[in-house]
Amino acid sequence: MAMSEFEIIRRYFADRGVRRADVVVGIGDDGAVVRLPPDSDLVTVVDTLVAGVHFPVETRPEDVGYKSLAVNLSDVAAMGATPAWATLALTVPRPDEAWLSAFARGFFELADRCGVQLVGGDTTRGPLTVTVQVQAWVPKGQAVRRSGAKPGDLIYVTGTVGDAGLALRAWQQKIKLPADHGDYLFARLHRPTPRSAEGAALRGLATTMIDISDGLAADLGHILEASGVGATLNLREIPLSASFVAVAGGWNEFHDEGDRLRVALTAGDDYELCFTVPATLRKRAEDIFSRFACGCRAIGVIESAPGLRLRQGDGTLLSLRQSGYDHFCQDRRDEGQ
Amino acid sequence: MAMSEFEIIRRYFADRGVRRADVVVGIGDDGAVVRLPPDSDLVTVVDTLVAGVHFPVETRPEDVGYKSLAVNLSDVAAMGATPAWATLALTVPRPDEAWLSAFARGFFELADRCGVQLVGGDTTRGPLTVTVQVQAWVPKGQAVRRSGAKPGDLIYVTGTVGDAGLALRAWQQKIKLPADHGDYLFARLHRPTPRSAEGAALRGLATTMIDISDGLAADLGHILEASGVGATLNLREIPLSASFVAVAGGWNEFHDEGDRLRVALTAGDDYELCFTVPATLRKRAEDIFSRFACGCRAIGVIESAPGLRLRQGDGTLLSLRQSGYDHFCQDRRDEGQ
Repeated sequence: MAMSEFEIIRRYFADRGVRRADVVVGIGDDGAVVRLPPDSDLVTVVDTLVAGVHFPVETRPEDVGYKSLAVNLSDVAAMGATPAWATLALTVPRPDEAWLSAFARGFFELADRCGVQLVGGDTTRGPLTVTVQVQAWVPKGQAVRRSGAKPGDLIYVTGTVGDAGLALRAWQQKIKLPADHGDYLFARLHRPTPRSAEGAALRGLATTMIDISDGLAADLGHILEASGVGATLNLREIPLSASFVAVAGGWNEFHDEGDRLRVALTAGDDYELCFTVPATLRKRAEDIFSRFACGCRAIGVIESAPGLRLRQGDGTLLSLRQSGYDHFCQDRRDEGQ
Repeated sequence: MAMSEFEIIRRYFADRGVRRADVVVGIGDDGAVVRLPPDSDLVTVVDTLVAGVHFPVETRPEDVGYKSLAVNLSDVAAMGATPAWATLALTVPRPDEAWLSAFARGFFELADRCGVQLVGGDTTRGPLTVTVQVQAWVPKGQAVRRSGAKPGDLIYVTGTVGDAGLALRAWQQKIKLPADHGDYLFARLHRPTPRSAEGAALRGLATTMIDISDGLAADLGHILEASGVGATLNLREIPLSASFVAVAGGWNEFHDEGDRLRVALTAGDDYELCFTVPATLRKRAEDIFSRFACGCRAIGVIESAPGLRLRQGDGTLLSLRQSGYDHFCQDRRDEGQ
């Protein structure tokens, strides 16, 4: 490499971004040292993005930097935790200054906004791969898990689903979207907003929570499996953005509303939160949700009978398998995403 | 992928190895949750190994699994910390069962020996890359850093240096080593023993510490730079193994002892600890070192004059630059290791 690892770290990553008072040793030693708040548990998440697998190789480097952190902050939010520190293991084929500079800009834009300090990492030469790890804390015993949903619990989802999946499909099929909707949908794909404040606000309230990375149906499926329960979703309550409705509505590949909902339920990369709340806490919960700028909607209910059922607009029920959505999920999971 | 990410995790990584009582949530949720001992600081290290860059592609998968954890445990030891939890971000071109099974065997062999629990990770498809992160703890404020060495402090190194570098050179040049020495030297390259107990025993005693990954001269250089000091090393005190002496002595590429010492001082991958101790604590320190099975030797002294000087057998001094070793270090650093 023309530029050494040390030089790359010094130029683009060290002494940059927020400085937290709880960081004892940051970048530049054998390890990072941080101090957790008293009576807290440590939450750790890690996600790898591989060029050509998790993002198209032509993705702008600032978007890769932003998204590599965002997907981890989304996992942190799904634990009800407060993010604090990050490490970055960055493998690059060569030290391309323009690429590194833009990558770091995207990474720190989000890190600074969320108060996360980059405390360590490793820079290596090889095929472009980004592994970010975020450390967070929760008050002792308050991490929100995937298990613990009980029959009668209400199922909620933040924001809207399907936007990123629609944008990815347009990109892959080289379909040009109208500028206003296109900008919105591509921002949802490349610059997802981690629901950090929302996730933290839900601790002590949500019985289970997950972030939607593989699609609402698949990720809710993980909650159902871990909790040993089933659920019915009301399809007409699935929150769709105006841009999703406008673009998908005019897309002749989608014959009807069912096709559009299939994308919304099974496409990944939404990075919204899906969670359950006991019906007895509904009022307290919805008071809290009313302060969520991204919105939050009740979409169904947990039931004791296993499986995921979909209530259609006319009141009839489909099983996930009958609907064909399950097959979609399976395809996606087999890709090793 | 024929086998999904979920299947790979379930088969090879979940519910395996030691179970620590301080793990609240392990593999299988959005994040891992662990509980640190009271009044401790969290130490985090991360290292990436890329196939073809950090290890030859033909390296046995069990050795890749072992070493990917070992290099991180070595960093933990260099902070004086006690390792506890690990995450694994594994990128593989395809789900090769034999490879994954052997990789996991090597990884857990060392994890179990060190009492480290794998609590999370990410399995993705792409060029073979292994990023391991280890979390450890130290009593509050007791992490050992690279800065803090004072003139008069004695410089120590554990074990012996140069073994792994000699083995790598033999491998690269396809030189066949005598079986007994070869086995030893290749074990030093592929299965370094992290100096975990030694590192933890040095907290409260060592003023600085680093693990030797880039070569003794380069890594001691990091301590000198961070501490704003210089040092003189006694070349005849540099600890060499019997196998190193036997093999390097018969290797006609090395004309003299100087050439051999150059390998020992500049070759990487030793994963021994280099550290400094105030001269006033020498007796207490050497009592502790006498219990180190790997041995520990005083090799020099910290001085106020910047730079690294080498005292030869005849008492004359060379600067690192005069010796030509510095150039070696620089080459290595430019590879981005």
